[in-house]
Amino acid sequence: MSYNLLKGKKGIIFGALDEKSIAWKVALRAKEEGAEFVLTNAPLAMRMGEIKKLAEHCNAEIIPADATSVEDIENLFTKAQEILGSKIDFVLHSIGMSPNIRKGKTYGDLNYEWFLKTLDISALSFHKIMQVAEKQDAMNEWGSIVALSYGAAQRVFPDYTDMSQAKAVLESIARNYGHRFGKLKKVRVNTISQSPTKTTAGTGVGGFDAFYDYADKMSPLGNASAEACADYCITMFSDLTKMVTMQNLMHDGGFSHMGISEEIVELLEKK
Amino acid sequence: MSYNLLKGKKGIIFGALDEKSIAWKVALRAKEEGAEFVLTNAPLAMRMGEIKKLAEHCNAEIIPADATSVEDIENLFTKAQEILGSKIDFVLHSIGMSPNIRKGKTYGDLNYEWFLKTLDISALSFHKIMQVAEKQDAMNEWGSIVALSYGAAQRVFPDYTDMSQAKAVLESIARNYGHRFGKLKKVRVNTISQSPTKTTAGTGVGGFDAFYDYADKMSPLGNASAEACADYCITMFSDLTKMVTMQNLMHDGGFSHMGISEEIVELLEKK
Amino acid sequence: MSYNLLKGKKGIIFGALDEKSIAWKVALRAKEEGAEFVLTNAPLAMRMGEIKKLAEHCNAEIIPADATSVEDIENLFTKAQEILGSKIDFVLHSIGMSPNIRKGKTYGDLNYEWFLKTLDISALSFHKIMQVAEKQDAMNEWGSIVALSYGAAQRVFPDYTDMSQAKAVLESIARNYGHRFGKLKKVRVNTISQSPTKTTAGTGVGGFDAFYDYADKMSPLGNASAEACADYCITMFSDLTKMVTMQNLMHDGGFSHMGISEEIVELLEKK
Amino acid sequence: MSYNLLKGKKGIIFGALDEKSIAWKVALRAKEEGAEFVLTNAPLAMRMGEIKKLAEHCNAEIIPADATSVEDIENLFTKAQEILGSKIDFVLHSIGMSPNIRKGKTYGDLNYEWFLKTLDISALSFHKIMQVAEKQDAMNEWGSIVALSYGAAQRVFPDYTDMSQAKAVLESIARNYGHRFGKLKKVRVNTISQSPTKTTAGTGVGGFDAFYDYADKMSPLGNASAEACADYCITMFSDLTKMVTMQNLMHDGGFSHMGISEEIVELLEKK
Repeated sequence: MSYNLLKGKKGIIFGALDEKSIAWKVALRAKEEGAEFVLTNAPLAMRMGEIKKLAEHCNAEIIPADATSVEDIENLFTKAQEILGSKIDFVLHSIGMSPNIRKGKTYGDLNYEWFLKTLDISALSFHKIMQVAEKQDAMNEWGSIVALSYGAAQRVFPDYTDMSQAKAVLESIARNYGHRFGKLKKVRVNTISQSPTKTTAGTGVGGFDAFYDYADKMSPLGNASAEACADYCITMFSDLTKMVTMQNLMHDGGFSHMGISEEIVELLEKK
Repeated sequence: MSYNLLKGKKGIIFGALDEKSIAWKVALRAKEEGAEFVLTNAPLAMRMGEIKKLAEHCNAEIIPADATSVEDIENLFTKAQEILGSKIDFVLHSIGMSPNIRKGKTYGDLNYEWFLKTLDISALSFHKIMQVAEKQDAMNEWGSIVALSYGAAQRVFPDYTDMSQAKAVLESIARNYGHRFGKLKKVRVNTISQSPTKTTAGTGVGGFDAFYDYADKMSPLGNASAEACADYCITMFSDLTKMVTMQNLMHDGGFSHMGISEEIVELLEKK
Repeated sequence: MSYNLLKGKKGIIFGALDEKSIAWKVALRAKEEGAEFVLTNAPLAMRMGEIKKLAEHCNAEIIPADATSVEDIENLFTKAQEILGSKIDFVLHSIGMSPNIRKGKTYGDLNYEWFLKTLDISALSFHKIMQVAEKQDAMNEWGSIVALSYGAAQRVFPDYTDMSQAKAVLESIARNYGHRFGKLKKVRVNTISQSPTKTTAGTGVGGFDAFYDYADKMSPLGNASAEACADYCITMFSDLTKMVTMQNLMHDGGFSHMGISEEIVELLEKK
Repeated sequence: MSYNLLKGKKGIIFGALDEKSIAWKVALRAKEEGAEFVLTNAPLAMRMGEIKKLAEHCNAEIIPADATSVEDIENLFTKAQEILGSKIDFVLHSIGMSPNIRKGKTYGDLNYEWFLKTLDISALSFHKIMQVAEKQDAMNEWGSIVALSYGAAQRVFPDYTDMSQAKAVLESIARNYGHRFGKLKKVRVNTISQSPTKTTAGTGVGGFDAFYDYADKMSPLGNASAEACADYCITMFSDLTKMVTMQNLMHDGGFSHMGISEEIVELLEKK
C-alpha cells in the first residue's frame, strides 16, 4: 500500500533498533510512501547486523550518533544533508532509556545521577536535535518533527518511574520548541503518545505484560500496534497536517479517555 | 470540629435529599463553621420528613424550588435574602437526574426528550441559578459558587450515559459564568469532581458497585467520602480560596491521575 | 493533488452551506481523494443554488435532512446506503447554530428554550446520527466519524455564549459514542477543534474579527484555514489513523498551547 | 485573622528568600494558623539578615540546606524532627532557578549542563525531599506536601525557556510521588500553579512585566497575590483537603481557562 504521501521528502529517523521497533516500521512505511532518509542510532545501542538489513531494504545510509552529544548531532545533520542533497523535511525521535528502570530501582529509591541521565537521553536529546537543526538551518519550511511519547506523562504507571518525567519533559519541549520553530520556519513539532507496544525497549519495563493487557482491555479498539503507529507518523509527516503543532496526539485505541470498561467491571465482579 | 471558616456567611444549599446526600453533609459542616443558609430542593424530590430534620438541626428554612424553573429560582433568591437578611455568599449546586438512566436506556438507545431533560435539570439549572442571582444582584462580592461534578465529564464510564454530557455542560458553565461573575462581582465559580459516592442518587446508576470498587482500588487514598467532600466545599466557600475560579477540582483520592494501580495489576495477573 | 487516500470509501457530509464552509472544502478534497458521498443539510439552511454546484462538481446527490430529526436522519442513512450501494465509511458533522447568538443575547441573559435548541442542533444531532447509524448497522468496520469543534469547549471566549456548552457536549459525545462504536464495529469517533474560520457561520459570532486576529497573533503558524482543515479531515477518514479515537484534535496552528506570544507582548508594551 | 487551621501541625518551609517570597507569606500565615515549622533555604541563596527576621517573627529555626543535596536534605529532616519533636505534617517546596534564564539564553541557544541544573534545582529537589522523607519515615499520616508551579508547564511562555520543562517535571513528580506516598502513608502531594507574582525570583524572568500585565488583563479576578497564595496553601495543609492529591491546582484568578478577554479585544481593536 502506498499513497506517495512523502514523495520527495527527506528525513532523519532516530531509534530503529530491531524489527520490533516503531522507528523500524516508520522507516519501512516512509520508504513505501516515497521518502528518502538516513537512519541513526546510538553507537552503543546499534545492533549493526539488524539495522544494516533495514538500511539496505530502504536504500538508506546509517549515521551513528549519540543523541546526548551535540557534536554527534551536528555531524549527523551535516552529513544527512549532504547525503540527501537537501534540507530535512521530517524527523522522528524514538529514543528512551532509564538506567533506574534497567537497574530495577523503585520510585522511592531513585539514583539521581541516573535520573538526570534518563532525562538527558530520553528528552533533552529532542531539544538538542532541534537546536542543532535550527542553528544549521537544516529544516525545510513546513517540515514536521515527531517524538514518541507515552501516557505516563499524564497519569501514573508506577513501574514507569523516572521515564514518566522524561515523557513530561519531551512533551513540554515539543510545545516550546514547536512555538519557536513554527515562528522561525513554519516547522511543526508534535508528540505521539502510543499504546504500550511490544518493542525490545517497551518490554523491559517491569510489569509490562500486565499493563499491556490492561490497556488492551480498557481501549475500545485495543492497543495500537507499531504498524498503526507508523501509519499515523506518516500522516504527521505529510502535507495534510501542516497546521497541527505543539500537540500531544494520543494513538491508543481510545485508552486515554476511558474511565472504566466493561471488561474490567466483569473482572471485578467475577472476583 | 469547627474553625469558624464561614462565620457570618450566608448561603443557599441545593440538593440535600437525605442524610447520605453530599449536600446534607455540606449543610452540617457549614453550620458548624458558622454559616447561615436556606435549604432547597425540588418539590417532587423532597422527602419532607427527612429534610425537616436537617433544617431543624441547622436552624435553617426550607424553600422548595424546581431548579429548572426560573420563576422558582427567582422566588428562592428573593426569599433567601429576606430570611438571611443580606445578599448571598455561597451557593452549593448538587443536582443531577437522568430520565434515561432511570429508565435503563443504554447509550445507543437514548430518548432525546429525556436527554434534553437530563441537561436541563443537571446542568442548565446551574446557569439559571447564576443568571437569576446576577439579575437580582443577589451575590455578595467575593462570593463562592460550587457545583458537584463527576469524572465522566472527562473520561468514559459507560453506564453514566447522558449524565456524562450533563457534567460536561456543568463544568463548561462554571468556566463561562465564572468569567462573567468574576468580572462583575468578584464571585468565583468552580466545580468539584467527586469520587463515586454512595448517595441515594449515585447508587441509582447501573454498575455502581463495580465502579465504586474499581475507583477505590485505583485511588491511592481510596474514594473520597461525602464527609470529606463537605470539608472541601467548606474551604471553597471560605475566604482562603478567593482567587480560585473557573476550575474543575478533582476530589477523588488521586483517581483522576492514575493510569494503572498495583491492585489492578494483581487482579489481572491472578486471572 | 491527490493521493487516493479515500479510494473506494463512501461517506456522508453534513453542513456544506456555501463555498466558504469547511464541509464544502472537505467535500472537494474527499472527491479528489477518490471518495463517493452524499451531501446533506437542513432544508431551511440549504441554499439550493449553491449546494447544487458542489453536488454537480462532486457527482454527489443531495439528501435534505434536519439533523435534529431522527426521522430525517433515518431517511438519510437509508437513502445514502442505497445511492452509494454500500455501508458508510466516513461521516462529517459540521453543524452549529445558536438562536441566542443570532438574537444577540449575552451570557447573562440567555433564553433557556433557545439554549436547549443550541444543544439539540449543534450537539445532540451528533448523537442522533450515530444512534441511527448503529441501529441501521449502517457503518462499515473501521469507519471514521468526525465532528468539527472549537476551543471554546475548553476555554472562555465570551461572545461564544451557549455554543461553548454545545461544543463541550459535542466532544463529550465523541468520547462516549466513540467508546461504544469502537467496541461494536471498530468505528472511530473524533472531533477536530479548528481555528476561528471565516465561514458564513463563524463570522456571525460577535467580535469575530477581534478573536480571529488575536488567535492569528497567538498561533505560531497563524490560524488554520478551511482548506487545511479539509486536508486534516481527509487523514482522519483514511486508513492511516485507524487507532485514533475519542480524541479532540486541535487544528489551530498551535493556539491551544500558547500562553503568551511576542506579538501580544509588543502590543501591550506599545500601549 | 486566624482559624487555627494548622493547630499542632509541624512543617518544613523551603524557599523564603525575602518578604516578597510566597514562602515567606506562607510562613507568616502558617504561624497565625497555629503551626510550628522550620525554615530552610540554600546556603548560597539565603540572605541571612532577611530570613532571620522571619524566623524570629515565627519563632522558627533556620536549617540551611542545598535542596539538590540528598545529604543536606537528610540532615534537614533529621534536625527538623528533633526541633519540632515529632514527624512532619506539611512541606512547602518553593524553589526554582534556571542558569539559562539568569544568563539570558534563549530557547534556541540553551546550555545543556545548565538545563540539567535547572531541572535538578527546580524539580528533582522535590523528589529528593520526598524520597528522604520516606526513607526516614519522617511524614505523619495524612500529611500534605505542596510545591509551587506555574502555567508554563501546560502552555508556552517564550521567556520562561527551560523553567517550563522544570515545572512539567515538578508536576509529574507530584503525581507520581503522590501515588506512592498516598499508598504508603496517606500523604498527599499537590502543586499549586500560581499567577505570575512579583517576587524577587519571578521578576528575574525576561518580559516579566508584560506577561504579568497580560495575565492580569486576561484573568477575571486579576492576578492572584502572594498573600492569596499563602491562604490557599493553608487550606491544602489543613485537614479539610485530605482527599485531594496528585493534582495541579490553578491559583490564577481564572487565567488558565480564558481564551480571550474583553480587555484584549479592546486593545486589538484600538490598534
